[in-house]
Amino acid sequence: MHRFRPIATFLLLGAALAGGAHAAPADDAYAAVDPFIGTGGEGHTYPGATVPFGMVQLSPDTQIKSRKEGYGWAAGYRYDDNTIVGFSHTHFSGSGHSDLGDVLLMPISGTPKLERGDVAKPGSGYTSRFRHDEEKAEPGYYAVTLDDYGVRAELTASARVGVHRYTFPQGKPAHVLVDLRTSMYDYPGKVLWSRLRVRPDGTVTGFRETRGWAPGRQLYFAMRFSQPLAGRQLHDTEQDVVYKGFPPPGEKDPRQRAQIEGRQLVGVFDFGDAGKQPLVVKVAISPVSEDSAIANLDAEVPGFDFDRVRADAKRQWSQALSAVDAQGSAQQRTQFYTALYHALLGPTLFMDSDGRYRGPDNAVHQAKGWTNYSTFSLWDTYRALHPLLTLVQPPQRTSDVVNSLLAARRASPYGILPVWAFHGLETWCMIGYHAVPVIADAYMKGIGGFDADEALQAMVASADYGPYDGIAQYRELGYVPIDEEGEAASKTLEYAFDDWTIARMAQKMGKADIAAEFGKRAANWKHAFDPATGFMRARKRDGSFREPFDPTASGYGTDYTEGNAWQYSWYVPQDVAGLAAAHGGADKLLARLDQVFDAKVDPKVFEHMEDITGLIGWYAHGNEPSHHVAYLYAYAGQPWRTQARLGQIMDSQYKPTPDGLAGNDDLGQMSAWYVFTALGFYPVAPGSNQYVIGRPFLPRATLNLPNGKRFSIIAEGLDAGHAYIGSARLNGKPLPRAWLSHEEIMAGGELRFTMQAAPDTQWATDPAQHPYSMSAQ
Amino acid sequence: MHRFRPIATFLLLGAALAGGAHAAPADDAYAAVDPFIGTGGEGHTYPGATVPFGMVQLSPDTQIKSRKEGYGWAAGYRYDDNTIVGFSHTHFSGSGHSDLGDVLLMPISGTPKLERGDVAKPGSGYTSRFRHDEEKAEPGYYAVTLDDYGVRAELTASARVGVHRYTFPQGKPAHVLVDLRTSMYDYPGKVLWSRLRVRPDGTVTGFRETRGWAPGRQLYFAMRFSQPLAGRQLHDTEQDVVYKGFPPPGEKDPRQRAQIEGRQLVGVFDFGDAGKQPLVVKVAISPVSEDSAIANLDAEVPGFDFDRVRADAKRQWSQALSAVDAQGSAQQRTQFYTALYHALLGPTLFMDSDGRYRGPDNAVHQAKGWTNYSTFSLWDTYRALHPLLTLVQPPQRTSDVVNSLLAARRASPYGILPVWAFHGLETWCMIGYHAVPVIADAYMKGIGGFDADEALQAMVASADYGPYDGIAQYRELGYVPIDEEGEAASKTLEYAFDDWTIARMAQKMGKADIAAEFGKRAANWKHAFDPATGFMRARKRDGSFREPFDPTASGYGTDYTEGNAWQYSWYVPQDVAGLAAAHGGADKLLARLDQVFDAKVDPKVFEHMEDITGLIGWYAHGNEPSHHVAYLYAYAGQPWRTQARLGQIMDSQYKPTPDGLAGNDDLGQMSAWYVFTALGFYPVAPGSNQYVIGRPFLPRATLNLPNGKRFSIIAEGLDAGHAYIGSARLNGKPLPRAWLSHEEIMAGGELRFTMQAAPDTQWATDPAQHPYSMSAQ
Repeated sequence: MHRFRPIATFLLLGAALAGGAHAAPADDAYAAVDPFIGTGGEGHTYPGATVPFGMVQLSPDTQIKSRKEGYGWAAGYRYDDNTIVGFSHTHFSGSGHSDLGDVLLMPISGTPKLERGDVAKPGSGYTSRFRHDEEKAEPGYYAVTLDDYGVRAELTASARVGVHRYTFPQGKPAHVLVDLRTSMYDYPGKVLWSRLRVRPDGTVTGFRETRGWAPGRQLYFAMRFSQPLAGRQLHDTEQDVVYKGFPPPGEKDPRQRAQIEGRQLVGVFDFGDAGKQPLVVKVAISPVSEDSAIANLDAEVPGFDFDRVRADAKRQWSQALSAVDAQGSAQQRTQFYTALYHALLGPTLFMDSDGRYRGPDNAVHQAKGWTNYSTFSLWDTYRALHPLLTLVQPPQRTSDVVNSLLAARRASPYGILPVWAFHGLETWCMIGYHAVPVIADAYMKGIGGFDADEALQAMVASADYGPYDGIAQYRELGYVPIDEEGEAASKTLEYAFDDWTIARMAQKMGKADIAAEFGKRAANWKHAFDPATGFMRARKRDGSFREPFDPTASGYGTDYTEGNAWQYSWYVPQDVAGLAAAHGGADKLLARLDQVFDAKVDPKVFEHMEDITGLIGWYAHGNEPSHHVAYLYAYAGQPWRTQARLGQIMDSQYKPTPDGLAGNDDLGQMSAWYVFTALGFYPVAPGSNQYVIGRPFLPRATLNLPNGKRFSIIAEGLDAGHAYIGSARLNGKPLPRAWLSHEEIMAGGELRFTMQAAPDTQWATDPAQHPYSMSAQ
Repeated sequence: MHRFRPIATFLLLGAALAGGAHAAPADDAYAAVDPFIGTGGEGHTYPGATVPFGMVQLSPDTQIKSRKEGYGWAAGYRYDDNTIVGFSHTHFSGSGHSDLGDVLLMPISGTPKLERGDVAKPGSGYTSRFRHDEEKAEPGYYAVTLDDYGVRAELTASARVGVHRYTFPQGKPAHVLVDLRTSMYDYPGKVLWSRLRVRPDGTVTGFRETRGWAPGRQLYFAMRFSQPLAGRQLHDTEQDVVYKGFPPPGEKDPRQRAQIEGRQLVGVFDFGDAGKQPLVVKVAISPVSEDSAIANLDAEVPGFDFDRVRADAKRQWSQALSAVDAQGSAQQRTQFYTALYHALLGPTLFMDSDGRYRGPDNAVHQAKGWTNYSTFSLWDTYRALHPLLTLVQPPQRTSDVVNSLLAARRASPYGILPVWAFHGLETWCMIGYHAVPVIADAYMKGIGGFDADEALQAMVASADYGPYDGIAQYRELGYVPIDEEGEAASKTLEYAFDDWTIARMAQKMGKADIAAEFGKRAANWKHAFDPATGFMRARKRDGSFREPFDPTASGYGTDYTEGNAWQYSWYVPQDVAGLAAAHGGADKLLARLDQVFDAKVDPKVFEHMEDITGLIGWYAHGNEPSHHVAYLYAYAGQPWRTQARLGQIMDSQYKPTPDGLAGNDDLGQMSAWYVFTALGFYPVAPGSNQYVIGRPFLPRATLNLPNGKRFSIIAEGLDAGHAYIGSARLNGKPLPRAWLSHEEIMAGGELRFTMQAAPDTQWATDPAQHPYSMSAQ
């Protein structure tokens, strides 16, 4: 039984709104979350247990059909599946790559098998069948019945500890299998080395080092059971790796081994007939050492009180979700709070209870006075996720994030900020130096707690690091030349935006020289613009655009990163006025935007690109380059068109169902887009301190701001038939513009919209009231 | 040019002695050492630079002919070779297995190649030819000219830092190649993961993790050059290991990489035309981290003064070698001091300058108030090497060794003392729990500085650890049953000896119950004795000896470990009286000993056993089970026969030439045997505090004891024709027995022998004056 509502009960938006607004205490917010949303389709979310920004993500992994199809199992679990291989302790939420899946546990009654078995032959391995009607998921808690074993498995978590409660059937020997071979769909194959050790007091510790998305990643763990071990078996299932003396003389019997090392380790721990009372297993992880994992275990979960850990997780989630009082239909609240939940999963804590963590140099470092985070999917999350955290989380969270980025840069072998990092390690995934806008956004919003001078230095160093992705040429030519560096158009555009945020921050800091230099670089997007075609394109070193040109082409070898010319040509959030001018005026730009949304596109064009999903014409909501595009109408003087497009997107791209996300949630970015858009505004240009107003999708929402103030957005008359803004008043005064400043929100107050059936083609169209990049260049 | 003297100049023993005794100051001792002894034949020693017990052993590695023949290259270098692949920083001295060879450097002038090339085709890779007449080795210093490059390479070392000085030819680009793929003869193949990083200040750091003799061994390093880097290339030569994002975008060019990770890494560092002044490269290693390696580098070798480091190494060696003033012929002094040199190479320091090290749990630990050592080839070294250290080194060295063993046990996943450990890790090589006699020997000799209660507890725990090598059955049956555990006869015999040392220590500590229990276990050798054949044999669980029985059979599957019945049947050092009685009296035992030495043995019998070398009849001096056998004549009442056999062994098994060791030096055990035997006595039963007198081989030797006293052994009239003891006086009083107590030596004084031409069949034959195990049972 789980909280996913059958499709037949979906309420129409209008019908829901007819019910009127009602109070939404925190527990209601908690209850509204459905962790199954996104676990099917393209979402790549996981349904398991974690606390906000927790280091442990304890979640079921289902058995993949084939490695070739592995992309879909990036979060370990797919809602369509009916077999579970076990519960592992680390998961990405919504990533496009797979890794993690550390320390998989499987409770087994009866005779344990050591292999997963054939997915087509239930019972052939230790995998068990399960049914969704015996499944339950809520923030910080997950439960399922493993039909092959008759075991009820419940999961909860604290920050660094996953806690399992297994209720075994009586009369059968109970076991817990620990598989160190698992790495999502690469099973086995990513493990470089691993260790499994049973200490005299029954604590099981170990480590594994994997060569996955990140290289040479070490993860340590410590595990304790609420019942004494009746026996154990430690196996190395790889037959071809032996070395002198292993297994130790006299320890050829896996039941006698105290420690085992190798590449494919699996342990089976026996508890006799454990049916009388549930077995609780607690597992701490650590980036540093087995002893640190034990320390984490002792610090966070000293006993075996599953319910206490669960209650504490619920308390943390209720508090985090209470950042917004969202009113609306049950469906809306489910979607909204699930999106908020997904937006509060990361970046994830990456630090032991004593402040030690591992950096991008794979060395152990000590955080003093701040908390280290990792899992930075920055190409995705700089857009809306990090700006959202400045509104719904204490400033400490963002300053910790900035301090984590700066610490990573200090330990970086390259001397630069993270690109796409997890568990401290750089993966070099995607493009850009998007830690830069995250820091600039924080600084511009007045979030302190970090060294601004060091931060600016780190930002400049990252933007100037020549060997990375054509930066040397970009600095030389003002653009990335496609004959020397792939996906050059996307890189030129994103670098220019990042550069603009450096200029903004430098200007505020009074560093005029840096501001001038990067202000100039911010205009480099112009080098990518081809007036002849009206597209952003990649030039060669000789200055000519690369030919032949196909605006529909995407992917490896093209001018673009995970997109095509139709998707990337509008990425100038720092200078939409300039973009419009390049096109010959706002009207021309508007026409082009319509071409994007209204095109008839054969979805087969993107079959080779897993990340380009959620198509509306060329608009691909399933991937980030499109995320700001609908808001550009408002910049260009037609906010009612933004309002219409947002309705189109919200209706078609999000559903309160497992397949309800049109694309990978991308570590919260897709969900953060939803939260902002549902509230009625969006941070098109992080670092601008402006949010562009779209339109409200909830009848009433109140931000309980971290400074103790409250900011309410009220949509009078909103229903499916009244979806256009007729007027807006901020704190009782007419608001003639389609943007809010960060300061206006943080000051608290009330933004009241009057909704109407027809587009209002006058409101917020005065050019003098345009957002930053249309008016303040 | 090196110190090895051509064979034509060898002096006959008699001729040398005719020159008479002369003073031997410490520098003469230093000059007498020839590090090439043992680098050919079976010795497996290395000629490179190290300090006493140093963590770094910086030595040339020659190119192996084929992996199949790899056994001979266990120390990296074979004197027969004429090509050098480079200089690596860690080496075993005299081991029978290969590992280490960490961080290999090769200076190259001209265009660098990335592979070693074909050994049969000089110039096909980076390997260079060299000639012995351009080679020089002395303690702490090695030099050679690399003919392919015209580079003069000199090596020296401090405890944790290897220092290279390369004199390049002018006019050619100079490079230093760093190869992380090397692991002696397993090249490549042992590397699980490795990292190479160039820091902004030009420091090169990295690590490698290998699955060799020890599992999952991590070694970190830091390297600095005396001249600025003109360029670099970081390569991963393994094409089939790639993961997303690697090499980092924009760092596809190996010249731009700041860091590289993988399994087969090689870096090339460029210095332009470095011919004007020598390039000094200093390399520190660390078991803990790259940062710790940098700290070691800074602590020990702050500048680039090669000569200062070399002079300091020489000073340390001169001081260590001054523990004995040995007089005799040049050849004798070369052999003696080279043996002493080899005996002072290990155990090796395994601890950073801040006291941190890695234990058998692969975790980092902190030593407080003591120094951690590793490289414990205990099956070999408990016999003579560790007892020798109690005489020639400060007691602190032995108490540090004991503390290291105890610390390893505290961190052991099995709760037991090391068996065969290096770099902190257990290899499970060989048999027994021979850390036990090392600790007992130290305790019985009054060496403090460790917790005796903890030590005894650790010894008992190791002796009682059931899963290891049939100990559970040994405790149950009094012997290891061959139908349940291989090589059972050897195990029963060695366990019984180790048990006796526990009993000795427990008795001295007043722990009567433990003394009684292990005193009883010390008699378990009797269960292995077969009166029908007069051999030690393996019984089955049912009590019967395993049939068929072949006393010449050795190796895997037999009753014995690296030996046969002819070699193992005399291993009862704790109860030679009992052994004689079992044979029917001392005369019967003496006759059996003659059968051992006088047998006609086809050497082909041991062709399959690499370790069984140095044959005199069945006596195999090249391996440890034989090491005490010649001394048993003295126990059994015929000391003159011991004297004769020792002459036979010393003459035939040791030469002052590269192939001058009859077997693997085994981390100093072969050499310690030589030192003791040359002095005139040997510790047959460590823990007894008795040394059995053989006969002196030097005209005069003085032990400069660690307590400041001096003990001289003078052999009046010794020459080739006068090789038997006629009389002995200890401090002027007649010594009627063939043993010395440890206390007698440590009290200082003079042991004066009068040598004669004919055997003296009366001296030291009084049964009342027999050594411990013949008289005190």
